[in-house]
Amino acid sequence: MLIKHGINSGFVARTCLYMLGSSGVLRRQQFLIRSLGVGGCSDRNTITNQKAMQGIRKFTSRPSLEADAESVLRAITPTLDPNRHKGQAGKIAVIGGCREYTGAPYFSAISALKIGADLSHVFCTKDAASVIKSYSPELIVHPILEESYSVRDGDRSFISEKVLAEVDKWMERFDCLVVGPGLGRDPFLLDCVSNIMKHARRSNVPIVIDGDGLFLVTNCIDLVSGYPLAVLTPNINEYKRLVQKVLSCEVNDEDAPEQVLSLAKRIGGVTILRKGRSDLISDGETAGGDDISCDTLDECELGSLPYQQLLSISVGVFLSWARQKIKNGDLSTSSRNPALLGCIAASALMRKAASLAFENKKRSTLTTDIIECLGRRISVQLVDAVDFQSIAFDLPTFRETSISLAYVMSTI
Amino acid sequence: MLIKHGINSGFVARTCLYMLGSSGVLRRQQFLIRSLGVGGCSDRNTITNQKAMQGIRKFTSRPSLEADAESVLRAITPTLDPNRHKGQAGKIAVIGGCREYTGAPYFSAISALKIGADLSHVFCTKDAASVIKSYSPELIVHPILEESYSVRDGDRSFISEKVLAEVDKWMERFDCLVVGPGLGRDPFLLDCVSNIMKHARRSNVPIVIDGDGLFLVTNCIDLVSGYPLAVLTPNINEYKRLVQKVLSCEVNDEDAPEQVLSLAKRIGGVTILRKGRSDLISDGETAGGDDISCDTLDECELGSLPYQQLLSISVGVFLSWARQKIKNGDLSTSSRNPALLGCIAASALMRKAASLAFENKKRSTLTTDIIECLGRRISVQLVDAVDFQSIAFDLPTFRETSISLAYVMSTI
Repeated sequence: MLIKHGINSGFVARTCLYMLGSSGVLRRQQFLIRSLGVGGCSDRNTITNQKAMQGIRKFTSRPSLEADAESVLRAITPTLDPNRHKGQAGKIAVIGGCREYTGAPYFSAISALKIGADLSHVFCTKDAASVIKSYSPELIVHPILEESYSVRDGDRSFISEKVLAEVDKWMERFDCLVVGPGLGRDPFLLDCVSNIMKHARRSNVPIVIDGDGLFLVTNCIDLVSGYPLAVLTPNINEYKRLVQKVLSCEVNDEDAPEQVLSLAKRIGGVTILRKGRSDLISDGETAGGDDISCDTLDECELGSLPYQQLLSISVGVFLSWARQKIKNGDLSTSSRNPALLGCIAASALMRKAASLAFENKKRSTLTTDIIECLGRRISVQLVDAVDFQSIAFDLPTFRETSISLAYVMSTI
Repeated sequence: MLIKHGINSGFVARTCLYMLGSSGVLRRQQFLIRSLGVGGCSDRNTITNQKAMQGIRKFTSRPSLEADAESVLRAITPTLDPNRHKGQAGKIAVIGGCREYTGAPYFSAISALKIGADLSHVFCTKDAASVIKSYSPELIVHPILEESYSVRDGDRSFISEKVLAEVDKWMERFDCLVVGPGLGRDPFLLDCVSNIMKHARRSNVPIVIDGDGLFLVTNCIDLVSGYPLAVLTPNINEYKRLVQKVLSCEVNDEDAPEQVLSLAKRIGGVTILRKGRSDLISDGETAGGDDISCDTLDECELGSLPYQQLLSISVGVFLSWARQKIKNGDLSTSSRNPALLGCIAASALMRKAASLAFENKKRSTLTTDIIECLGRRISVQLVDAVDFQSIAFDLPTFRETSISLAYVMSTI
């Protein structure tokens, strides 16, 4: 299934009134509505689906387009339950952090916690570890990776095995690995990371690949080829290299969604989130242009702002949640691909958090400012719009969490 | 004495109107009232006890239930006195912090200061020490523990003695040790910590055990067995392992308070604070279900939020204060067990701080956010309700701290 979606969001916004009923837009709505996880309560399910299907005929403006991805986000986000214990809402590991880069792995790991994961680990070099630890006591940082400059030739094999063993003893506890933030391109380190990825794949642990992880994967596509739990999150340059290497052609912006679909299919059904002005998402079977909030982004000219580097960890958390819900039978979706659902939710969240940060900080918006908006965006802002009176009938008590209130809002 | 208390706080909240006068609730109120330390002024004592006993008949809603534990908290909290010198309000030591974990011991140590202790030490490995020091200049950090990887076999005995000597020279200054936050499970390190615990016990220093300290104690229960100044603060998984090891059975949630009581009794009268949706507390003679503020907690569905890891240090501080007051004859309570009183106060404080943090940060609430609320919760929120005019007559000057204002409020 292919859902074509315009890259130029301004154009889409201006023309969607006229495109209503045309196959592209209609198919996309249907896809998103079928992807909606409204598990748990079948009554609500029915109401939602009925209302959502009615909604197709009403989708005449941008706000309606926005609501779809937010609904996916709400549906896969677990409700906070006092009976759950620490770890049940996600254990994420970031593989990255070397002599030069310490910021990127920190930003990723702390964002995982701010989004709502329970535990966030970082596996990095010794040089990077003490610095990353000092950024925040919330993270668990393992100083176990090694770079060529600190390893003698004769010791390589021994150290490589030791690194793998150190990660491996934690592997089965992780719900997702995010490989690449601040990883660097040291050949010995990348060799070790290749081995870690092979082990993760054997253990069926999802892998989201970003930054220098994409440099590694582009040169050795077999690491992810045919693995449905792999997600690649390339930016414009990383995407260009991937297309050249895998499809042996140049980037085609006119048929961008089709090209993302072809690329994902050629790599054997991995999911690709192409970061850009519009985020494009495909798993080789389904493709969607997720240009949620692009109006807002256009307004504030976010463009190349640093929210893009937080997308991979966001995908990691939402993918883990979606996978858990699917395993438990709590999510009735037409798409059974947690990677695809994770990408939609991640894109929606990060763009909204970035917009919120930009409202306050304008041109001086830093990654830190966006991270600060993550929690607010999930739980406060969505709920602010709720008319509590109108939904009261649907709540057994007022003890429902903010997320579930927002969820209820989406069902009426 | 056994005070049975419903685990399902929602149920308790909704039904307590009808349960008024029923044996469980009534006994619990009586227990808490008898535990109230309102020492210092016998007139106030009399007034308070009279009012409190009248209060039993008024306990018809949750706010009144809450007030009990808050009263314990206020009663054991020392008044701030300009004539006291640094150290008199508590000197606490955290034993924990290794190559992987630096956050947990930092969170504990800084919380001790935020709650109101005067001095907070950390004994950790060299790797961890510089990182923990970098989190805050408020802490005194001793880089003296060693892990197996840095100790040659032939040096073990020598190093073990050296570690013990380093801690021992500080031992008699401490009012409490908190063993376990970020301790790790390195066998050599745990051997050294066993020796430290034996010395603490010989010196009659209270020991609160958490995290990996519970892993150590579960495998060697003699370390705490029969020591009334030991407190274990297990979470759901740690509790399960303790029950299996000590009682040779599985966790029984239907008679949870009774099981906690049996466990505490079997370990020879240590105090157990079972962390969970409701915190359950017992010293083998008295058991209470402390679900204070659970209404608030239910509202925000705190669940697995990280406030649980701050309970052990909170117990350490309040236990020290209660012990000091009992020694000085300032606290006339039916329970003479400072560990029990410390657990009640700690649970009340941490749940309230966590609720306050959650109000602002929702799903993205981190441990850091809860710590920031500790001071506010003690000194601002309780006092906000005080009518300053009505209590002015009772204050020698306006130099009294907010805590003592709150305390005065509770006696008039």
